[in-house]
Amino acid sequence: MNFHLVSIFPHYFESPFASGLMGKAVENGLVAFDHVDVRHFAGGIHKSVDDRPFGGGPGMLLKLDPMAKALDSIESPGRILMLSPRGKPLTQARARELSAEEDLTLICGRYEGIDERLLDLYPIEMVSVGDFVLNGGEAGAVCLVEAVARLLPDFMGHTDSGEEESFSAGLLEYPHYTRPDDYQGLVVPEVLRGGNHGKIEEWRRECSLESTLNDRPDVLPEASLTVEDIDFLRTLSRTRLGRNLYIALCHYPVVNKFGEKVAVSVTNLDLHDMSRVARSYGLGGFYATTPIEDQKALAEQLLNHWKKGAGSIANPDRAEAFSKVKVFDDIEAAVLDIETQTGQCPRLAATSARLDRRKHAEPALTYADVRKWLEISPVLLVFGTGHGLAEEVLAKAEGILRPIRFLDDYNHLSVRSAVAIIVDRLIADEY
Amino acid sequence: MNFHLVSIFPHYFESPFASGLMGKAVENGLVAFDHVDVRHFAGGIHKSVDDRPFGGGPGMLLKLDPMAKALDSIESPGRILMLSPRGKPLTQARARELSAEEDLTLICGRYEGIDERLLDLYPIEMVSVGDFVLNGGEAGAVCLVEAVARLLPDFMGHTDSGEEESFSAGLLEYPHYTRPDDYQGLVVPEVLRGGNHGKIEEWRRECSLESTLNDRPDVLPEASLTVEDIDFLRTLSRTRLGRNLYIALCHYPVVNKFGEKVAVSVTNLDLHDMSRVARSYGLGGFYATTPIEDQKALAEQLLNHWKKGAGSIANPDRAEAFSKVKVFDDIEAAVLDIETQTGQCPRLAATSARLDRRKHAEPALTYADVRKWLEISPVLLVFGTGHGLAEEVLAKAEGILRPIRFLDDYNHLSVRSAVAIIVDRLIADEY
Repeated sequence: MNFHLVSIFPHYFESPFASGLMGKAVENGLVAFDHVDVRHFAGGIHKSVDDRPFGGGPGMLLKLDPMAKALDSIESPGRILMLSPRGKPLTQARARELSAEEDLTLICGRYEGIDERLLDLYPIEMVSVGDFVLNGGEAGAVCLVEAVARLLPDFMGHTDSGEEESFSAGLLEYPHYTRPDDYQGLVVPEVLRGGNHGKIEEWRRECSLESTLNDRPDVLPEASLTVEDIDFLRTLSRTRLGRNLYIALCHYPVVNKFGEKVAVSVTNLDLHDMSRVARSYGLGGFYATTPIEDQKALAEQLLNHWKKGAGSIANPDRAEAFSKVKVFDDIEAAVLDIETQTGQCPRLAATSARLDRRKHAEPALTYADVRKWLEISPVLLVFGTGHGLAEEVLAKAEGILRPIRFLDDYNHLSVRSAVAIIVDRLIADEY
Repeated sequence: MNFHLVSIFPHYFESPFASGLMGKAVENGLVAFDHVDVRHFAGGIHKSVDDRPFGGGPGMLLKLDPMAKALDSIESPGRILMLSPRGKPLTQARARELSAEEDLTLICGRYEGIDERLLDLYPIEMVSVGDFVLNGGEAGAVCLVEAVARLLPDFMGHTDSGEEESFSAGLLEYPHYTRPDDYQGLVVPEVLRGGNHGKIEEWRRECSLESTLNDRPDVLPEASLTVEDIDFLRTLSRTRLGRNLYIALCHYPVVNKFGEKVAVSVTNLDLHDMSRVARSYGLGGFYATTPIEDQKALAEQLLNHWKKGAGSIANPDRAEAFSKVKVFDDIEAAVLDIETQTGQCPRLAATSARLDRRKHAEPALTYADVRKWLEISPVLLVFGTGHGLAEEVLAKAEGILRPIRFLDDYNHLSVRSAVAIIVDRLIADEY
């Protein structure tokens, strides 16, 4: 396989590609590197490859002409990739796909980057090694070349190749141990020293599942899991961000479709659906707030039917869900209740289906923002009935969560749907 | 800043760290590298650093003792990091945090990895440069060192430092252009050649937003966006995976709580909530299926009230939502309808609140699996009323989607909530 490395630092690659198995692969002719030095294609006395950007800003850019000439000089470039934080992330699947190519050309940008018109001139695929900024594309190219080359047949010494490893199965790798079996009192797990291969397999799978749940819960949604895997995962304790999350459904003050401040009636089904969400996601609690006495009495009557009355016998799951609900006068009372329970004043976030177009409005809270709050503090998330929370409630909140479907102008979801979606975005399956 | 690099290939780093700005930073004493060669700490005649893993499996492991001695030899190690696909991903925020340290020790694993007990002996933080497999930690260490070192004051030539770049604002970087302003007919955008800095700023922000939406929609949820940003994003066309997604609510055959096959009545609020989800997420359509004639008539009467009757005048948004709903006899009729509309037979996925414990059951479909289907084919996602879809419906589906909250045993969500959550997981805000 031929890698054509287009760079202004061709010597950058010398030592990494001379080390270990990569050095051997070069010696054996399995991999060949063609270093294309962009400076060779620069004109003028100074052989300058960089220039200042149009429109101002810090730093310099790689000039178009030397880059174009460098690319033109490659006889069989194959697919042309450019390392860039603007690219799609490199994954093991992408590496596997690329390892089937005969030739690959990798463009390594430097300075602030390249002249954008290079992308108009050549069919360049951008690829990123991660969400961080480097001095140039070379370090990313070293990663890409290694990830791809090691998947070539015969690159690894043994036949199992590079595949039975981290990310090959969508889970993190299990731990390894080697001799001595006792090192300063730290011993190798018993199961690995026995010869029961079934047990060893099972132990390794369980270790992979456990470390994925603990260290990279973000990859669990994409991992292929058997029922046995899931049953094992259920036995493990995990970070339960939901415990810090409280939701409130505010029935007053909210606005009607004319923007007037009104009170909305308590609705049986809102209480059902939201309490089932609260219980399923392990939330701290669910408050229904209304200052109207007969509405509170109605809500309590409904709750009692399901918690203690005929409903609790017919449907014990529902009784469990309704144990999460409290009916209070207003949001302040809910805040006080959380403070009494947890000893911490909750952070208050509002929700809305509309963008906040008030003057000097802060950018909307992202789900990541609120998730960070949940890691250290209780959070009360307030939902409005009717056509949304009144201005005076919004004003009390530390921020307003970005509306669902904010890229479209139609987002007329029921409050029941909005609660389900927002809680899921914050807590998901893994927390 | 001192980087202590623990590796069996100390020469690996020579050329990358001698190139460009990094080479200058070393000359200026801003950065110093301390190469700790693990082989120096190996015992025996052969100075062997690797051994076979307990429990079998391909490849070799780095032995514990030389690694421990190598670490002990470092006088001021500072924080100890190990490059590993098991680690938390390196981010720009992490790089910034690390750039405040005086010393950093980076452990580069090789072969299949290290002996796990090293993690018991030292406070080691694992860090990953991406979801791909390398020959060892060295390539990742090169990335980490570059990402961290370039944030040191004085590393970059200019004062704006490395921060005004990709990922600093949570968006991809805008395009750059340099001279000549006309290259083979490709001209630099007019705005960059004018001197209006306000316009240039706005153009660059819009380019960043557009390329983030096109190339990395996955980072949009975490980006801080103003109302102006969102208004601009709304003017752009984007991949609309929702158009390929159809949902069906099946009222027969489903099971009751005793597992018996039954029909469930059509419910006004299910139709409301689900059609509002279908419209808000731009789905292809929503089918309510029941073979019972008077139930179908009831459903049509409801729909007509909102589509053409008094409801449509009071609430035109609802009329728009209900235009997505069709009432059909069964799932087969819905499949045929999609085939007629699109010319493609939809792939069929079922949903369930329970794990599939049938013998020889396939692992549940992940949301990523179904999202891949949506990229090329219409998909009909079937939801059950009552206590879930009957076996005969499940058997027709290509797979069953992994249950919501699969790590817990309580997931008694309403079907309305489940539909909202599952559609949001597949389509989110960005598609």
